[in-house]
Amino acid sequence: MLAPLLVSFIYREQAEHKFAFLIPILILAVLGCLLQLPKPKRTSLYQKEGFALVALVWIVMTLFGAVPFVINGDIPNYIDACFEIMSGFTTTGSSIITDITAVSHSTLFWRSFSHWIGGMGILVFVLIFIPESNEGSSMHLLRAESPGPQVGKIVSKMKVTTRILYLIYLGMTVLEVIILMFDKPIPGYENEKFFFSLLTTFGCAGTGGFGFIPGSMELFHPFSQYVMAIFLILFGCNFSLYYLILIGKIKDVLKSEEFKSYFLIVAASVCLTFISLVGKFESFPQNYTTEEAFRHSLFQIASLITTAGYTTTDFNVWPMLASTTLIVVMFIGAMAGSTAGGLKVSRIVIAAKGCYVNIRKLINPRYVPKAKIEGKILEEKTTNDVFSFITLYFFILIIVTLLLSFDPINGQTVQIVSDAGTYTVKHGFFSNFSSALTCISNVGPAFEAVGPYASFAGFSWFSKLILTFTMLLGRLEILPVIILFTPRTWKKV
Amino acid sequence: MLAPLLVSFIYREQAEHKFAFLIPILILAVLGCLLQLPKPKRTSLYQKEGFALVALVWIVMTLFGAVPFVINGDIPNYIDACFEIMSGFTTTGSSIITDITAVSHSTLFWRSFSHWIGGMGILVFVLIFIPESNEGSSMHLLRAESPGPQVGKIVSKMKVTTRILYLIYLGMTVLEVIILMFDKPIPGYENEKFFFSLLTTFGCAGTGGFGFIPGSMELFHPFSQYVMAIFLILFGCNFSLYYLILIGKIKDVLKSEEFKSYFLIVAASVCLTFISLVGKFESFPQNYTTEEAFRHSLFQIASLITTAGYTTTDFNVWPMLASTTLIVVMFIGAMAGSTAGGLKVSRIVIAAKGCYVNIRKLINPRYVPKAKIEGKILEEKTTNDVFSFITLYFFILIIVTLLLSFDPINGQTVQIVSDAGTYTVKHGFFSNFSSALTCISNVGPAFEAVGPYASFAGFSWFSKLILTFTMLLGRLEILPVIILFTPRTWKKV
Repeated sequence: MLAPLLVSFIYREQAEHKFAFLIPILILAVLGCLLQLPKPKRTSLYQKEGFALVALVWIVMTLFGAVPFVINGDIPNYIDACFEIMSGFTTTGSSIITDITAVSHSTLFWRSFSHWIGGMGILVFVLIFIPESNEGSSMHLLRAESPGPQVGKIVSKMKVTTRILYLIYLGMTVLEVIILMFDKPIPGYENEKFFFSLLTTFGCAGTGGFGFIPGSMELFHPFSQYVMAIFLILFGCNFSLYYLILIGKIKDVLKSEEFKSYFLIVAASVCLTFISLVGKFESFPQNYTTEEAFRHSLFQIASLITTAGYTTTDFNVWPMLASTTLIVVMFIGAMAGSTAGGLKVSRIVIAAKGCYVNIRKLINPRYVPKAKIEGKILEEKTTNDVFSFITLYFFILIIVTLLLSFDPINGQTVQIVSDAGTYTVKHGFFSNFSSALTCISNVGPAFEAVGPYASFAGFSWFSKLILTFTMLLGRLEILPVIILFTPRTWKKV
Repeated sequence: MLAPLLVSFIYREQAEHKFAFLIPILILAVLGCLLQLPKPKRTSLYQKEGFALVALVWIVMTLFGAVPFVINGDIPNYIDACFEIMSGFTTTGSSIITDITAVSHSTLFWRSFSHWIGGMGILVFVLIFIPESNEGSSMHLLRAESPGPQVGKIVSKMKVTTRILYLIYLGMTVLEVIILMFDKPIPGYENEKFFFSLLTTFGCAGTGGFGFIPGSMELFHPFSQYVMAIFLILFGCNFSLYYLILIGKIKDVLKSEEFKSYFLIVAASVCLTFISLVGKFESFPQNYTTEEAFRHSLFQIASLITTAGYTTTDFNVWPMLASTTLIVVMFIGAMAGSTAGGLKVSRIVIAAKGCYVNIRKLINPRYVPKAKIEGKILEEKTTNDVFSFITLYFFILIIVTLLLSFDPINGQTVQIVSDAGTYTVKHGFFSNFSSALTCISNVGPAFEAVGPYASFAGFSWFSKLILTFTMLLGRLEILPVIILFTPRTWKKV
């Protein structure tokens, strides 16, 4: 919180904006010191403790991270504030703010900065700076916090691995900020160029997607939009691949099945969306040129498959083929070991191979599976874990959709103003379903009444709590959160 | 087809209606005789052959079963006719007929009769009459055709098992027809009482759901509606439970976890729907009395969880809580070993236990799973199969929704006339998603523009083929169909 505090001083904001960060900083400092006092007998962690700890830390972070918004008055309601900062840390980017122009610089910075921290993992970040951390314990924490079905070390020591990954992350972040600075400033925001480049990059790097001016990225020039789309796709790659490039093993990168599948899915989805927009099989309000149709297709696919959720146009009114493609990539997500949410491409690949093995076994009961993933034998345990994860994912999606159906907002009409004009839309099943999906996949915008130009503000506090929890489930990939709330975790073995 | 031919004679229909069945009967008889000629060297079946055979027979049945509709002119388009009869055999009940009053008695009978045959399984039915059938081969066929994750014999011999199950099926069918005959006739259809009771029962027994008068079951008296609801719930039970009741082991029935879960889900869903309808948290056109609200809740839940798809009212305009509950039960389906579609309650129970085991293993890596299902140890292979089935199920649902988004019908407006009045509705994402769901779960009606008072007629031929195939995937539970189309199945081992 020192960073947004600094922003608050730079922009000479009023006292309450500085206190908004100072107060929680002081409280946390005192609490932190108090927690140093009891010396634990055992310094290593069991796996279950690692999982539960990660989930607990994320909840505590959210509870304290929401405090500044309430103190500075930008988001007066505490539940709303928790929703917003959980959406930040989990890199979802769904917002309950209805008038973004009324929000202070320090709040905007804190929201986007939370994406950057949450993207790579809070605890993993902290671990880099703790000298005496235990190797096995760190591994458990990394496993619980990193997105994807498996966690590999790229060098023998875990701490060195995380340091390398964070350096790559930092390097790419700096590179994007520099490139974005080359663009013309946005009319009406001439003095904000560096600030906006920074916030945009935080959102891209963490694949978060909080907007900070009306219309998300609509007002940005095409140059910036292309740069963002490319960086989004890059931040959706497994970071170990960049390490392989750095040490000159580019061939290994090109051999990676997940890498190939990811780019194939991106290319196919952009094509489908582009065809849908230029083919005009179905009428829709926007009248894109071919370049615009391509740019918006590329940007929206990049933004939704990496689960960032930035928007350059109102895709809520797009033809069905384009919008269904967007829904599908929201399920898939980008690569494991990136900052993205969703099921992850590697899980899709493993599930597909697992199904293939099961069918081969039915055809020939004596068949011995030889399926491989990234050159290693695909073990039955891995497949089973992936299947059970996907099952849980869909079950949670259905249950959350059902819980959202209790909300009094259902059946109400919302007016939306976007580049597609002004139109009204009813809050129906698709609104709830896509809200649940966008939260569990940590995307950001949903569809229908909760589309890219609408906000989550209309939901009841109950729905907001459910969705806040869903974002956490999605970000930590379900199991750590369940383990935290399982009474058996807390029994002594 | 002798049965509908008889109906055609009884109702003294015109010549083309008789030829409609006579011609395919003759063709099939000749083909059948020709197929008797080559004597196979090996009379037993491998598992893969059993699976592929079942899928193949269902496709052939559909291709021939569609012929009568084309000949008698009730459904002139062959693809439409295939959709309709596949919907019949798979006990889906989705229809492309827009004016049901213009259809002949023999067509109505053939449609509903196909539910009754398809419900228990065509091949299993045939097996009862083949004297020299091989025990192991029959088991493979039964496994491929019976809904549910596992197939148990209730007595040591497979053939005796199927005979007992079919006798129970027949007995319950006769009982329902008799009870329905006690109701007052429907005004305007005074002479059709027995015919309607028969068709209604075919639909209930096979959990199919083809309507035969406008408005599905809306015009039926409350007595009949209650009877149907109860019989639907009963036909959604595993038929082995009835055998247990017959031999006096009622305690075993009450101990069955699937049985308890099924009734719990039914009760909870009826409650949610009822609360949603009487609570009026959200306005909707119908103005039900409390009794009506209860009856429609009970009927619709019974009809959709058993995946029959009969309707007594236009649930398309119901409040969100009620309609989302209906969507959820469409996923679940009824018990394994019944005539219903969907995921099946036993799979949900097994998946839940599998997730529990996986979490326990994470909490304590030395944990030895002791989870049981129906008193037997839950094996890892069973869990793995269930997880992989659920994953495939959701993947197919998403892919079919994507394929439907190509249809030019998207974005078009449909006018619907129902007990909720006349209203227009746009064909959007929810229409496609619910159509895909209703077909893979073999339910029948979808939502939005393909709701209970609309038809599937508006889809393009491509979408109709996709949905026809989806129904088959749903009914045969995916694997047999995939095995049929896997080239490796046809290689000699």
